Amino acid sequence: MTSTPYPVPARMTAIAIRAPGGPEVLVPEERPVPAPGPGEILVKVEAAGVNRPDVAQRKGHYPPPPGAPDIPGLEIAGTVVACGEGATRFALGDRVMALVAGGGYAPYCVAHESHALPVPDGLSAAEAAAVPETLFTVWHNVFERGGLKAGETLLVHGGSSGIGTMAIQLAKAFGARVIVTAGSAEKCDACRKLGADVAVNYREQDFVAETKAATDGAGATLILDMVGGDYIERNYEAAAVEGRIVQIAFQGSPKATVDFRRIMLKRLHHTGSTLRARSTADKAAIVRAAGEAVLPLIAAGRVRPVMDRTFPLAEAAAAHARMESSAHIGKIVLAV
Amino acid sequence: MTSTPYPVPARMTAIAIRAPGGPEVLVPEERPVPAPGPGEILVKVEAAGVNRPDVAQRKGHYPPPPGAPDIPGLEIAGTVVACGEGATRFALGDRVMALVAGGGYAPYCVAHESHALPVPDGLSAAEAAAVPETLFTVWHNVFERGGLKAGETLLVHGGSSGIGTMAIQLAKAFGARVIVTAGSAEKCDACRKLGADVAVNYREQDFVAETKAATDGAGATLILDMVGGDYIERNYEAAAVEGRIVQIAFQGSPKATVDFRRIMLKRLHHTGSTLRARSTADKAAIVRAAGEAVLPLIAAGRVRPVMDRTFPLAEAAAAHARMESSAHIGKIVLAV
Repeated sequence: MTSTPYPVPARMTAIAIRAPGGPEVLVPEERPVPAPGPGEILVKVEAAGVNRPDVAQRKGHYPPPPGAPDIPGLEIAGTVVACGEGATRFALGDRVMALVAGGGYAPYCVAHESHALPVPDGLSAAEAAAVPETLFTVWHNVFERGGLKAGETLLVHGGSSGIGTMAIQLAKAFGARVIVTAGSAEKCDACRKLGADVAVNYREQDFVAETKAATDGAGATLILDMVGGDYIERNYEAAAVEGRIVQIAFQGSPKATVDFRRIMLKRLHHTGSTLRARSTADKAAIVRAAGEAVLPLIAAGRVRPVMDRTFPLAEAAAAHARMESSAHIGKIVLAV
Repeated sequence: MTSTPYPVPARMTAIAIRAPGGPEVLVPEERPVPAPGPGEILVKVEAAGVNRPDVAQRKGHYPPPPGAPDIPGLEIAGTVVACGEGATRFALGDRVMALVAGGGYAPYCVAHESHALPVPDGLSAAEAAAVPETLFTVWHNVFERGGLKAGETLLVHGGSSGIGTMAIQLAKAFGARVIVTAGSAEKCDACRKLGADVAVNYREQDFVAETKAATDGAGATLILDMVGGDYIERNYEAAAVEGRIVQIAFQGSPKATVDFRRIMLKRLHHTGSTLRARSTADKAAIVRAAGEAVLPLIAAGRVRPVMDRTFPLAEAAAAHARMESSAHIGKIVLAV
C-alpha cells in the first residue's frame, strides 16, 4: 500500500448477518478495515446499494462465493483512500462507484480497480451507489447477451425495480420500444414517466395478451425476466419469432412445467446469467463496455438511477424490510 | 414451362395417406403430375428420403403447411424434366437433390430451384435422396444456430439416426469432438466407425455422467437434441458453461418439469428450430451455405449419407414400419 494523506483506521463498524433470518439479524459488528490486494482499491464508503441478493444472503439462501467478505453489500460509492499493488487506474481522493464481491454495508470496502468507474459529475453518493449492479446487469443481459437493437421491442418484468428502471432508460436511450410489467397503477405510472411505451399492471392484465396487442401480434423481441415460475412458459408465448429471453433471477420458482415446442417452432433463445459468479476479467469487460456506453448518457442527464429511499447504514434492517415489502420504486440505498 | 425433350405424363401413381393411422394407411393413389410454378423445377423422382415428420404426418399429428402437397415426402433426388417461369439455375436433364414442402413419395415432384443442389459425382440416387433433410438440418442447427467451432465438443442424441450420422461426420470434418447417445452396442459401434469419439449406450449408461467424464467435468459446448422430455433438464446438466442446446424435435414429450437455475448459473443458451416452417428465402440461404461448405466434402468422399435400407416406393408402409421400430441405422429411402 502506498503512503497516503487519507488516514485509514484499523477497525470499523460494519453491518453483519448475525445468523440467517429476518431483517433483524442485520446487526452492527466491529471488523478490521480490509486491506486492498493487488489491483484493488480501498474505498471510504459514502453509500451502498441494497439488492435482492443481499436479502437472499441474509436469509441464508445465497452464500457469498469463496474469498468474498461475509458482510453483505454488492455495490458502493465513495472515495479512494488506498491503492493495492499495481492498482494505478485511480488516484487517492478520486470518487468512484464500484461493483464489489461483498462487504458494501461498511465504512470501508475493497473493490477491484477494474470493477470501478468514476462518479459522473452531478451524481450524489447515494445515486452513484445505486448505479453499478443495475447498470452492469442491464448492460450485459440486455445489450451484450440479449443483443437489443434499435427498433426492437424489450419486455421487462419488474419495470419499477432498480433493474427495471435502468432497463427502461437504457433501452429507450438506444432506440428500442419498451413494455414493462409492474404490480400497481402507481408503479406503471412511474415506468411510463421513465419512457416505457406500455406498462402492464400484472395484477389486472395478462402480459402475454398486452405484449401481443402492443406489437401487432408479433411479440417481444427480447424479454428480461427475474420472475421465473409460470412466467417462463408465458415468456415463450409473449416472445416474437427468434425472440430472446434472458433470465436474471427467480423471484418466483426456478422450477416450472413448460411446453418447449415454442422454443423450436418460434426459434426462441432462452439464456441467462448472474453477475456475482463471473470471473474478475469478465466483470472488468462488462464494466468497461458499460462505462464507455453509458457514462456519457449519465453525465448528459439522459440516464439517472431512480431513487426510492436512502436509509442510514445502521438502519439496514429497515432497508431490507422495505425491499421485501416490494413497495419501493427504484433503488434503496444505505448512507454511511 | 419451356418445351422439353423430357416428356412428362399428365398423371402418376403416388403414395398418399388414406386416413390418419398406422403404416397401412400409405396407399397408392393416382394424382395429376404437378406443374412447376415460378422459380420451381419439376423433378422425375428416382428416390425419396423417409423422415420422422412423414410418420407424424401419417398419424395426423403434423399437417402439411398451407399450399404444400398432401402427399408425404420432404426430400428427393432425380432428374430435372421441366422448369417453371424464371427457373434458370438447372438445365433439363440435370441430376438434383432437393428439399421439398411435401410430395416426395411420387414419380414426379416439384421443388423450388433454390432448395436444390446438384448431385455430387459418385452418389447414387438413393444416397442423394438421403442428403437434403439431414444436411440442411444439421448445417443450420449445429453450425449456423449452434455455432459449432473446431475444438468444441458436440453431444448428439440419436447418433445413429439419419440426422445423427450426418452430424457426426460434419462435426468431425470441421474439427469438433463428438459424443453421441444411441440405444444399442451395435448402434454405438456404427457411430464410432463414423468418427464419434465417445458413444454412450443410453440404455445402460447415464449420458450426463459420461459427457462430464469425457470432458474433464466441463460438459458439452453444444447439444443437438431431438428427444425432449426428461432429456431437457439432463441436457442442462450435461452442458458446459455458456453451452448451447439446440432442439430439433421431441421424440419424447415436449412438456417437462425443469429446474431453470442452470440456464442462469451456467449461462446456457436453449434454442431450436424446425426446417419445414421456414420461408422460401430462409431455406434457400441454408441450402446455399450448406452446399458451399459440404458438397466438396461429399465429392471428396469425406462425408457420405449412411444408408439403412432402400424400399420400393410401393412398400412405403414397410419403410415407415422400419423407422417406427427404430431398428435402423442411418437413412431409410424409397426407390421410385
